[in-house]
Amino acid sequence: METTLSITGSIARFGSDPSLVPTESARAVARLSLMDWAAAALAGLDEPVARITRELADEEAGAAQATLFGLARKVPARMAALANGALSHALDYDDTHFAYVGHPSVAILPAALAVAERQGASAAAFLDAALIGMEAACRIGHWLGTQHYNHGFHQTATSGCFGATVAAGRLMGLDTAAMRQALGIATTRASGLKSQFGTMGKPFNAGIAAANGVEAALLAARGFVSRPDGLECLQGFGETHAGERTDLAGALAGLGNDFWFEQVQHKFHACCHGLHAGLEALAALKAAHHLQPGSIAGVTITINPRWLRVCNIASPTTGLEAKFSYRLTTAMALAGVETAALQTYSDAICSRPDLMALRDRVVVRGDASLPDTAARVALQHTDGRALDGAFDLDQPMPLSQRRERIAAKVRSLLAPQAAEAILALDSGLGRLGAIQVAETLGRLALSHPCAAVMSPASSDRSSHASA
Amino acid sequence: METTLSITGSIARFGSDPSLVPTESARAVARLSLMDWAAAALAGLDEPVARITRELADEEAGAAQATLFGLARKVPARMAALANGALSHALDYDDTHFAYVGHPSVAILPAALAVAERQGASAAAFLDAALIGMEAACRIGHWLGTQHYNHGFHQTATSGCFGATVAAGRLMGLDTAAMRQALGIATTRASGLKSQFGTMGKPFNAGIAAANGVEAALLAARGFVSRPDGLECLQGFGETHAGERTDLAGALAGLGNDFWFEQVQHKFHACCHGLHAGLEALAALKAAHHLQPGSIAGVTITINPRWLRVCNIASPTTGLEAKFSYRLTTAMALAGVETAALQTYSDAICSRPDLMALRDRVVVRGDASLPDTAARVALQHTDGRALDGAFDLDQPMPLSQRRERIAAKVRSLLAPQAAEAILALDSGLGRLGAIQVAETLGRLALSHPCAAVMSPASSDRSSHASA
Repeated sequence: METTLSITGSIARFGSDPSLVPTESARAVARLSLMDWAAAALAGLDEPVARITRELADEEAGAAQATLFGLARKVPARMAALANGALSHALDYDDTHFAYVGHPSVAILPAALAVAERQGASAAAFLDAALIGMEAACRIGHWLGTQHYNHGFHQTATSGCFGATVAAGRLMGLDTAAMRQALGIATTRASGLKSQFGTMGKPFNAGIAAANGVEAALLAARGFVSRPDGLECLQGFGETHAGERTDLAGALAGLGNDFWFEQVQHKFHACCHGLHAGLEALAALKAAHHLQPGSIAGVTITINPRWLRVCNIASPTTGLEAKFSYRLTTAMALAGVETAALQTYSDAICSRPDLMALRDRVVVRGDASLPDTAARVALQHTDGRALDGAFDLDQPMPLSQRRERIAAKVRSLLAPQAAEAILALDSGLGRLGAIQVAETLGRLALSHPCAAVMSPASSDRSSHASA
Repeated sequence: METTLSITGSIARFGSDPSLVPTESARAVARLSLMDWAAAALAGLDEPVARITRELADEEAGAAQATLFGLARKVPARMAALANGALSHALDYDDTHFAYVGHPSVAILPAALAVAERQGASAAAFLDAALIGMEAACRIGHWLGTQHYNHGFHQTATSGCFGATVAAGRLMGLDTAAMRQALGIATTRASGLKSQFGTMGKPFNAGIAAANGVEAALLAARGFVSRPDGLECLQGFGETHAGERTDLAGALAGLGNDFWFEQVQHKFHACCHGLHAGLEALAALKAAHHLQPGSIAGVTITINPRWLRVCNIASPTTGLEAKFSYRLTTAMALAGVETAALQTYSDAICSRPDLMALRDRVVVRGDASLPDTAARVALQHTDGRALDGAFDLDQPMPLSQRRERIAAKVRSLLAPQAAEAILALDSGLGRLGAIQVAETLGRLALSHPCAAVMSPASSDRSSHASA
C-alpha cells in the first residue's frame, strides 16, 4: 500500500471502485450532456473531418463491435471512438468544463459508448462509467493546470485521454492495478496540440483521446505492463507536458463524493464561447423589456480584454467570421435572429442591411476586472432611455432550466423525430442497454436527421479561442 | 512560395520529391537495416508485448491490407504498423542512430512495409521510401535536439513518427502540400515517453510511431486539413515538446544528397548498448592474441562515467541483469561465450563458477574524457604481461564488414532457413514486390524460425539507458 497520495493511484482507485455510485445530481447532468453530445454529433455528421475519419474506418473495417455514426456497419470499438470523437467535436457545439478548460463529452462519451457496446453493458453502467471518466478528466486536468494548457496542450485531448481510459477501463472491469497500467499506457499515448485550432486537427484531437483511452484499456486488460505511476513519475506525463502539479490535494479533494462534472457548461449559441455571456445578458434584457431594434441608438458590450483578440471581428463577411463577432451577434440577438441555430451563421446574414445598421451601433470594450465568463451590456435608446444588463456563465443554472434549454437546442439542431428520440433518453435510459442507445443513435445518423441546412461557411475551422 | 526555410516545408519537399534518388551507399545500408530489423522482429515474436498487440489486432481484424508477423491473416496497414513496430523493438536488438538518439528501423520500416503492401509497391520503392523516412527522422530529430530527448521524450517515438509519416506518405504519392498536412496531423498525434523504459511501453512506442505515421498519411491523402507548419509554428510540436530548434540550417544541410542514415549503428551484442564498445575492444584483443582466461589476473574497463549508472551491475543474478553488467559480459567475452546470442543471457550463466571467478577480477572505471561510444580495456596477466585495447563505436566500419557481421547476427538469431531467406533480400530485393517481402517474412514468422530458446529472463524490460 502506498503511504503518500499519488494522482495515478488515486484516480485508478476511484475509477475501478466497484462500490462507487455517482450522485443523482451528477447523473442528471451527465444525461443532459449525453443528449447535448448526441445532438452535436448528429449535426456534425456531414463535416469534412467526420467524412474523412469515417472513410478511414470504412476502409479498415473489422470486428462489428461498436456503432460509428453515419456508417452502416459496426467497427472495432477503438475506431468507433476515434471517428465519433472527431465528428462530435466538428461543430464545436459540445460542452465545456472550465475546471480544466476542456470538452469532456466529445473525448469520453464516444470511448465509453463504444466499449459499453462491445461489452454489452447496460445504458446506466455506460453513463456512470462515462461520468466517472469525465470526473477523472476534470481532476487530472486540474492537477495539470492552466500551465499545461497555456504551454500549448489541448486539455480536451490530454486530460480527455485519461478520462476516456478510466471510462473504458471501468466498463471492462479493470481492477485498480490494471487501471494504473491503463493510465500508464495512456501517458505515453496521449497527445493533442492547441496549434491545431482552426483546422480539422481540433475535432480530431477529441477522437484521438477517445481512441487512445479505448486502446489503453484493451491493452491493460490483456496484461500490458507499463508504469503504475505514469502521470507523476520522473519524466512522466506531468513533468514532460508542462503540468503544474502543485495542487494534488485540491485535485483529489472530495473525490468519490463531489462531482465537479456537474459544473459543466453547455453551449446554447452556435458561436464562439466568448460571445455567450453577452448574448445571455441581451436575452435577459429582451425578456424583461420590449426592445425595438429601430429604437436602439447604441450598445456597449464589455468583456474581459482577452476576448478582444478572439471574437471581435467588427464587420464579418462570412458565416464563419460571424461566429467571432460581438457586433454582428449582438445585432442578431436584438433583431430576434436565432443564435442557437447552426444555419444562422451564413455569408448572407453578414450583408443583411438591418443587421449591418444595428451592428454599426455596437461598441466593444475590454475590462480586466471582469472574469472570462462574464459580460456587461449597456443599451442606449434613441429617446435617451438607458438599460444595463450583465451575465456570468459561471452562475449556477437550475437543472430544470438547463434541461429545457438543452431540449430547445436539440430540437433546433435535429429533425423532430431525431430530437424526440434523443430527448427520450433522459427518462428512458434506465430501461435500455448501451447497445440499444448506440444503435438508436446510429439509426438516426443514417436517416440524416440534421435540421440545419449547412451554410457553406460551416466548416471545421473552429475558434482559436475555444478549448 | 516560402522565402524562409521551414523544417516542415523542407522535409515535406524532400519526402515528396519524385525525382529524389537515394545514393547507392545509403541504399546498401538500408538493406542491412532491413535484414537486421527483420531478424530482430522474428526473434521478438514471442515477447509479451508482441503477443498483446497481436491479440488486439486479431480482435479488431479488418481489411486484409498488410502482414502482421505472427498472425495468420492480414490486417489494416495502420494496425500492422502498430503491432510490427512493437514486436520488432521488443528485444531492443535493433539499430540506433546517434544523430538523434533513436531507433529508426523499428518505427519506420513497419510503417513503410505496411503501406507498400497496401499500395502494391515494388520492394525497391518500399525501401527507398523507408530510407527517405528514416533520413527525415534523423533530420527532424537533430532539429529537436538532445534537449527534447533529455526532457523525457522518446525520439524513437516522436521523430520516428515524423519519419514514418514521410515514408508512408511517399508510398501513397502525397504531393508536397499533402505531405505538409500529413506532418501537421502527425504533430498532434506523435507521443512517447522515456519514462516507459523498462516496461512494454518502450517497444510499444515504436509501434505508436509507425501507426501514427500510417494514419497521418491516410488522412492527408483523403484531404484532411491540419497545419502546414505544425513542427515550427507557435505552440507547434517543437515548442511544446522542448525542442531545441537552434540548428535548422544544420538539420537541413545537404538534404537530398547526404544521407545521415548511413551512420546508423547495428547492435552486435544482445545486451545494453553501453557494453558494446568494451566488448568490441575485447574482441579485437582476442583476435590479435591468444588469451587464456585462466592466465588473466585482472581486467580494467574504462568508459564514460554516465554508463556507471546504467549497465554496471557488479554481480548479476538474472539473465536480464546480465545484460547490464560490464563485469559479467567481460568474463563471457574472455571465456568465448557468444554475447550476440539472446539465449546467452540466462539466470544460469550468472552462477557459472568459471565466469564468476573471471567476473570478480574485472574492475570498471569512469573517465569523463571518453565519448559515450568508446571504451578502453587493460588486461593484466598472471605472468605480469599487460595488454591494452580500445574501441569507439563511432569509427566507420567498412560496408563489407557490416554485412558480414549482420549476416552472423541474423544466423545467430534465426533458424537456418529463415536466416538465409532474410539474407537473400540483400541481393534479391530489386526483383521483388513489397507484398512478396512482407509475405515472405510473414511465412517465416508463422513457422517459428527463432533459433533462440528464450530464457525466462528474456522480457520486455529493457534498458533505462537505451534510446
